[in-house]
Amino acid sequence: MVYLTRRERFSAAHRLFNSELTDEENEQIYGPCANPNWHGHNYILWVTIKGEVNPGTGYVVDLKQLSQIIRKKVIAKLDHKNINTEVTFMKDKFVSTENLAIGIWNELDPSIRMLNVELHSVKIMETENNTVEYLGK
Amino acid sequence: MVYLTRRERFSAAHRLFNSELTDEENEQIYGPCANPNWHGHNYILWVTIKGEVNPGTGYVVDLKQLSQIIRKKVIAKLDHKNINTEVTFMKDKFVSTENLAIGIWNELDPSIRMLNVELHSVKIMETENNTVEYLGK
Amino acid sequence: MVYLTRRERFSAAHRLFNSELTDEENEQIYGPCANPNWHGHNYILWVTIKGEVNPGTGYVVDLKQLSQIIRKKVIAKLDHKNINTEVTFMKDKFVSTENLAIGIWNELDPSIRMLNVELHSVKIMETENNTVEYLGK
Amino acid sequence: MVYLTRRERFSAAHRLFNSELTDEENEQIYGPCANPNWHGHNYILWVTIKGEVNPGTGYVVDLKQLSQIIRKKVIAKLDHKNINTEVTFMKDKFVSTENLAIGIWNELDPSIRMLNVELHSVKIMETENNTVEYLGK
Amino acid sequence: MVYLTRRERFSAAHRLFNSELTDEENEQIYGPCANPNWHGHNYILWVTIKGEVNPGTGYVVDLKQLSQIIRKKVIAKLDHKNINTEVTFMKDKFVSTENLAIGIWNELDPSIRMLNVELHSVKIMETENNTVEYLGK
Amino acid sequence: MVYLTRRERFSAAHRLFNSELTDEENEQIYGPCANPNWHGHNYILWVTIKGEVNPGTGYVVDLKQLSQIIRKKVIAKLDHKNINTEVTFMKDKFVSTENLAIGIWNELDPSIRMLNVELHSVKIMETENNTVEYLGK
Repeated sequence: MVYLTRRERFSAAHRLFNSELTDEENEQIYGPCANPNWHGHNYILWVTIKGEVNPGTGYVVDLKQLSQIIRKKVIAKLDHKNINTEVTFMKDKFVSTENLAIGIWNELDPSIRMLNVELHSVKIMETENNTVEYLGK
Repeated sequence: MVYLTRRERFSAAHRLFNSELTDEENEQIYGPCANPNWHGHNYILWVTIKGEVNPGTGYVVDLKQLSQIIRKKVIAKLDHKNINTEVTFMKDKFVSTENLAIGIWNELDPSIRMLNVELHSVKIMETENNTVEYLGK
Repeated sequence: MVYLTRRERFSAAHRLFNSELTDEENEQIYGPCANPNWHGHNYILWVTIKGEVNPGTGYVVDLKQLSQIIRKKVIAKLDHKNINTEVTFMKDKFVSTENLAIGIWNELDPSIRMLNVELHSVKIMETENNTVEYLGK
Repeated sequence: MVYLTRRERFSAAHRLFNSELTDEENEQIYGPCANPNWHGHNYILWVTIKGEVNPGTGYVVDLKQLSQIIRKKVIAKLDHKNINTEVTFMKDKFVSTENLAIGIWNELDPSIRMLNVELHSVKIMETENNTVEYLGK
Repeated sequence: MVYLTRRERFSAAHRLFNSELTDEENEQIYGPCANPNWHGHNYILWVTIKGEVNPGTGYVVDLKQLSQIIRKKVIAKLDHKNINTEVTFMKDKFVSTENLAIGIWNELDPSIRMLNVELHSVKIMETENNTVEYLGK
Repeated sequence: MVYLTRRERFSAAHRLFNSELTDEENEQIYGPCANPNWHGHNYILWVTIKGEVNPGTGYVVDLKQLSQIIRKKVIAKLDHKNINTEVTFMKDKFVSTENLAIGIWNELDPSIRMLNVELHSVKIMETENNTVEYLGK
């Protein structure tokens, strides 16, 4: 069993807020992250899959293929977007990095299963000090 | 003459567009950077000053003091903000990294002169592949 | 279950030595790390907690709160200090990175439990080539 | 139980190909990685061992000793070499990063057992976007 | 005048040697870099141009356009290649990083002039400890 | 003219203080950096030389030779040392990064001249946010 990690990147705008609260209440909970005019990040995404090494190719999975899945299913939907208003799979969710990791997992999992390997981890670095990882359960 | 560089960081939303053009025309010029719903970045800012070493302290300038100036004059105005709509010193400018570097230079220069040292460079990394530097002329 | 990692940094002096041995014997075991005049490092600390996403906030835990705990319980005691002589929780221990990771775990664990999440990992990078991780058991 | 990670680096040439296929077929499967004239990488290797902290030294294991084992058993055989033609432990294997991680594990495991600690992970970064990890099973 | 830097990457094989010397003599001068079986690197390339900010776009130059020039003129010729045997612009030169920087400058300069900006610097990092920069004179 | 940069690293203890002032006065000026019990850093040092490419070797200068000079003249004196009490070339100076850069320049310059190249820059990163560069005048 070998673990393979592909790194991809996207830049996006978001804000943290609860639509049932006032701007003042949101700022109390989320601080400057609640700014109604948005802010943004360069997100770094690491997707790790695990599987056996294919004896015919030496690969667990072709990294180009894995990269294409991540780009099509995730990066194309997030890069240079507003995560709150433009990303279908985050609709009606708090746009926290935690929920983003879970959302990305759900976007990727079906396609990665079709490669006959297992999705192991979705990790997102939002800033150099803050990172979130989801292992699917 | 010694060069001293302080690194600071900010996360902000922006878009690139010309208000005299349509959304379609803007997208032709600026691509996904023109997205009317904004996107954002983790910007890294390096401010370099130059001066003689103070024989009484061993410092060119107290880095804490330099950091405070950068935070007060620049970071507080940019971090978790929308650069297009909330940053006075970028008003009526294209929010390119080039113009941001020039704008930051102009914000910092008067305060740094008061420390009796010279502002040498303002460098901004917008993504790990794109960096802009302005030397004041 | 989501894993959240906060990075913090501290700069400190230390030396490795066994007080029951001579300087020569200590140098044989610990090499230049035994230097009686001290040396030091920029330590990077990653603290990972795990927990469920709070459906009301989208957070596992407020990262600002986590950061404040780490700064109060750990960074304030270590940053710009001599780990051998000034850090109560390392008293009478070998100041190896291994023991430092265990010591930091013990400092953090009670406060992190009070956030209703679990401390998962304390990881310390002493130099870019040497890293230690402790998972609490 | 504490985990200790040592980072080492090596620069090497390789190509990906199946000797039973034509150059054209290899290029179809492996793309530019199949170039018969070779290409190369700066590989970063992280070796993680786990064990109890020795109460007499504060160490799980002397990192210098661990580094010497990695350099003797792995780096000396790989650095500035052609992995396909000069590395005995990769003979008759596809020179994928997956197989390289397994090969390095097998080179290191016996020596690391003699230190009375357990090899936990061999991780290789081939490019900043591609990383492979092997945990021994 | 603003400086704009674009980072690109390529992985390639090479060796250092003087074709008029024996393998033994080459190894004496170039050490393991002379290995006749090749070795390789992940090269990082930073190309810096300088120019005035275009008042109509906010750009010195469109970074996508700059990136396309670098990819077409340089990366496509170097990535996953053997620099000694496959790269026309390095033919009959010692494949040192110094000569590679000069060669890349000469490949880029005419196209960058056509953008009405000036090529300022070509910088190549061969390993994390070794970097070369060429300023065109 | 090509610029060649060699990176080296050292870990050392130091404190900032003026021996004519009291501990309280030193703490007012230098803050926690004045701690009489020392603190320390992982310093990163970049030494840049400039010169013509030697047509016989393709090198400006042999990087191994440059590295050996830096290690012998600088790293051996600083690594795992107390810069205030053990480093002859810093004797009776404030151990600021500014003075350290000037001191390292003076240690290196004569040996580098003997290689028939010119020392261009000594740059020291003390923490990831603070960097000092000295160009020799």
